Amino acid sequence: MGDIYDEIMAIAKRRGIVYPSFDIYGGISGFYSYGPIGALLKDNIIDVWKKFYVVREGCLLIDTPNIVPYKILKASGHVDRFTDILVECKSCGSKYRADKVIEEQLSIDTSSIPREKIFKIIEEMELKCPSCGGKLGNPREVNLMFKTEIGFGDVVKAFLRPETAQGIFVEFNILYNVAKKKLPMGVAQIGRGFRNEISPRQGIIRLREFNMAEVEVFFDPKRDDHPLFNDVKDEEIKVITKDDKELQDTVGNLYSKGIIKGKLLAYYIGLTKKLLVALGIDEKKLRFRQHKLYELAHYATDCWDAEIYLERFGWTEVVGIANRSSYDLTTHSKESGVELVAYRNLEKPKKVVEKVVIPKYNILGPMFKDKLKAVERALKEGKYTDTGDKLVVDLETEKIEIPKSAVDIKKKEKTIMVEKFVPWVVEPSYGIDRILYGILEHSYTRDDRGYVYFRFRPYIAPIKVGVFPIVNKEPFTSVARDVYMRFVREGIVAYYDASDSIGKRYARMDEIGTPYCVTIDGQTLEDNTVTVRDRDTRKQIRMGIEKAVEFVKEKTTFKFS
Amino acid sequence: MGDIYDEIMAIAKRRGIVYPSFDIYGGISGFYSYGPIGALLKDNIIDVWKKFYVVREGCLLIDTPNIVPYKILKASGHVDRFTDILVECKSCGSKYRADKVIEEQLSIDTSSIPREKIFKIIEEMELKCPSCGGKLGNPREVNLMFKTEIGFGDVVKAFLRPETAQGIFVEFNILYNVAKKKLPMGVAQIGRGFRNEISPRQGIIRLREFNMAEVEVFFDPKRDDHPLFNDVKDEEIKVITKDDKELQDTVGNLYSKGIIKGKLLAYYIGLTKKLLVALGIDEKKLRFRQHKLYELAHYATDCWDAEIYLERFGWTEVVGIANRSSYDLTTHSKESGVELVAYRNLEKPKKVVEKVVIPKYNILGPMFKDKLKAVERALKEGKYTDTGDKLVVDLETEKIEIPKSAVDIKKKEKTIMVEKFVPWVVEPSYGIDRILYGILEHSYTRDDRGYVYFRFRPYIAPIKVGVFPIVNKEPFTSVARDVYMRFVREGIVAYYDASDSIGKRYARMDEIGTPYCVTIDGQTLEDNTVTVRDRDTRKQIRMGIEKAVEFVKEKTTFKFS
Repeated sequence: MGDIYDEIMAIAKRRGIVYPSFDIYGGISGFYSYGPIGALLKDNIIDVWKKFYVVREGCLLIDTPNIVPYKILKASGHVDRFTDILVECKSCGSKYRADKVIEEQLSIDTSSIPREKIFKIIEEMELKCPSCGGKLGNPREVNLMFKTEIGFGDVVKAFLRPETAQGIFVEFNILYNVAKKKLPMGVAQIGRGFRNEISPRQGIIRLREFNMAEVEVFFDPKRDDHPLFNDVKDEEIKVITKDDKELQDTVGNLYSKGIIKGKLLAYYIGLTKKLLVALGIDEKKLRFRQHKLYELAHYATDCWDAEIYLERFGWTEVVGIANRSSYDLTTHSKESGVELVAYRNLEKPKKVVEKVVIPKYNILGPMFKDKLKAVERALKEGKYTDTGDKLVVDLETEKIEIPKSAVDIKKKEKTIMVEKFVPWVVEPSYGIDRILYGILEHSYTRDDRGYVYFRFRPYIAPIKVGVFPIVNKEPFTSVARDVYMRFVREGIVAYYDASDSIGKRYARMDEIGTPYCVTIDGQTLEDNTVTVRDRDTRKQIRMGIEKAVEFVKEKTTFKFS
Repeated sequence: MGDIYDEIMAIAKRRGIVYPSFDIYGGISGFYSYGPIGALLKDNIIDVWKKFYVVREGCLLIDTPNIVPYKILKASGHVDRFTDILVECKSCGSKYRADKVIEEQLSIDTSSIPREKIFKIIEEMELKCPSCGGKLGNPREVNLMFKTEIGFGDVVKAFLRPETAQGIFVEFNILYNVAKKKLPMGVAQIGRGFRNEISPRQGIIRLREFNMAEVEVFFDPKRDDHPLFNDVKDEEIKVITKDDKELQDTVGNLYSKGIIKGKLLAYYIGLTKKLLVALGIDEKKLRFRQHKLYELAHYATDCWDAEIYLERFGWTEVVGIANRSSYDLTTHSKESGVELVAYRNLEKPKKVVEKVVIPKYNILGPMFKDKLKAVERALKEGKYTDTGDKLVVDLETEKIEIPKSAVDIKKKEKTIMVEKFVPWVVEPSYGIDRILYGILEHSYTRDDRGYVYFRFRPYIAPIKVGVFPIVNKEPFTSVARDVYMRFVREGIVAYYDASDSIGKRYARMDEIGTPYCVTIDGQTLEDNTVTVRDRDTRKQIRMGIEKAVEFVKEKTTFKFS
């Protein structure tokens, strides 16, 4: 038996929490499956996440495809910059991430080293293959997106999305209209992300197919504020600043001292802390680390990672909270040719002089017939270029020319109340698989008898209640079945168990973190009461069946504190 | 404005229910996004599905990767048989499904025509391109799975899964152990499926990336029964049998008359009817159609489709309920070399003669040293081949030879109580997107004033309650905000709206099927009561704030009937 990671992953496989996929075919690193207990656990984590972001924050939850066309990921920068440097053993052919090999063999922090330098180090330092000791060579930059193709013949090149965010950006206009053009507008998406890691060796911490929950909060950079800021301003957090200072302070203070640059950024750091703790992450093993300049992703102007401490992996990023500025909307506007903008009310109305083109219908009518309406609209919306003697009008489907003699051009003074701008974005992006593993490790408990179990928050626990007949015979079994069905009808995930001794049944339920067990015994037959046992105190309370159902329901339902 | 499909999809886009993806980049057919209202609707559908299959049935919910290695889909038959015949216009290059072109131009039902014949018809009948009238040619069989590759250099070929089911089959052994080796064992998976359709032209009805919810119920073919059969046996359904008979009868009768072949199959047909109706599918527009022999998928021995009637598309499959026999486990056992079997207790104990190999430790000890334990275990488990003078022992990591002189071989009579067998599978497989569209169409209502809205079941409705101040000023707005937050704290998706007239706000909520609206008015300030308006009756009831929160919660929570 190795460290705590090995211990947990052994239980995780045996009890059906999470384990490597495709096992009978030899497995492929970077792919894990959630078993019956793990899938419920993951769903419960996501449910609480949705309570925070969708129910309370009012974020718009959307769900867009995993397959994303080339054009979009070219525009976003992923085709050019979502890369790692691969290095290969000249003897055995094993493949590694160049930066990881350098870190391990030369003990250098590579995060601040530019790409070209990595190539040079690999070539000059004669690094050895960690597996066979052969010479490493052929460093090359590889793109980490999984490729695919849509259609046949003249195919559309596409990728599996590296993040859910791009699906949100390209739908900005639809969403802005749904939100009745109000900012800040948070848009949430929960789903898979894909990253073709060169050679993932960290188990569930580094997956090629992973679960993420992201929010893009579109806002007016001139109005960087959140209506619920006061709810989080007193949250105390541990931070590492970009110049390596360790501080412990409230989110409100860190913002007003200018350490967290931006009020929305500060708000979502505070909210992330509340959410992670609500999920069962140990507050003492949680910190927020500000990215150094050279660490920032190509789209980010400031970024904080929520990191949790894990025994094998050290401080591990589980949430990234970035200010992506107007990068994504700007680049998609440019590449698609469709304007992605919002409007803000001006403080004072502004007078502007506008050129108005008035069609002469007696000329244009006969010229364009059924196209007249489209021409009229295009002129009204300013969709034309003035070439001196002609106007080139853009009808979307085609461009047509009209002589200037066919219109009157007037200048008109106009008072405008709004101006357009490209919204900025603050993005909290959660790695669900790492959070799930963090919850496993931080809630892993050895009790006074030496038994181990997961001390899950009751609303996170996969199974809420075990239901046992004291002995596996009638009439206990019928009554227990009936009690079990009462839980089921209330929508509570319950587990009926009549095999082995009661002690063994408790132990099985404890191990997977089931908070309550209800036992039907002799007294139940007399007075309709059952015992309700608490996982952590191991104490039993006797109560009526109705009451027990209500009690378990109440205790295992998430409530905002 | 076209038919009801166009009407619904126009509302769906405007209100953020569902719409074509990648719009600003021109879109790609077969990809749709769920907007803020649609994603909630989809989640609510899935929640009720889980209540039926996971909470009540006790199915094991799992979550396996979307990327699936080649080997698995080769074994399952998808590499060879998940295909369509593509035909291409020789003039304009447009691509079509050959069977669809034949159906449209020759009015023949192609479902019973063998593949080779399709090729011949295309070649002989000189069919024309539906888009340009050119000659169609080059029919060829294409595989419909999206391809990708894992890793770099010596890549692992893989596909995006065409169904979630294969992820379940390959994990049978892990799951069977988690279920403490009990059958029937239902395993559920909800997630994406992918199918690279040749040229999808049916909007949301034929997607290249879709949402499915599947259950594989593993069972002993000698014990084809379900403990809850009596709960569904009286469900009345409309059926079309494989010889085109139309019947209306109960599930119980259809089973006992031998029309539905199998009790589990009958059970899941009944359960599917209950679930679809609970979701809001119109019972009068629902039927179950038995596959004809030539329609059966390569793995199925009997299959029933739940079909719903849609105005544009006619009778449309939304759920397939198939008996897959032992096909998948057998083929994966064979291809992976790992036995995928279950055990059944024998009715009578059975005597068998068994060969027992007893190691001579004085010889084997010095021969194998630290491998001795592994050799001992392999011999005990019968993992060896007798070549006459030697035993070839399989240690999993390697094969070793031992001379017969190093062991004693004895024959032993043994009484066995169990025998192994390959479980059979009944699979209900739900297409979530089609069901969602079906719910939209079947709940689409035009009221006496001419307004249209979706009459969603309250527990399916995306937003449960609108909260309005009677006018958009203090103190109404503060009180309304406070009421709104009470709903939020109860985990209820609420929508605060203070803009425009109350009538417009009601209309906006009605349109997306919000069942209740709560208004804060002058009387609220006096006695803490609000009005609760019902979407369908448009009647308002006045009640205390506490009571209103409880009322909405109670009315919008799913309960088993």
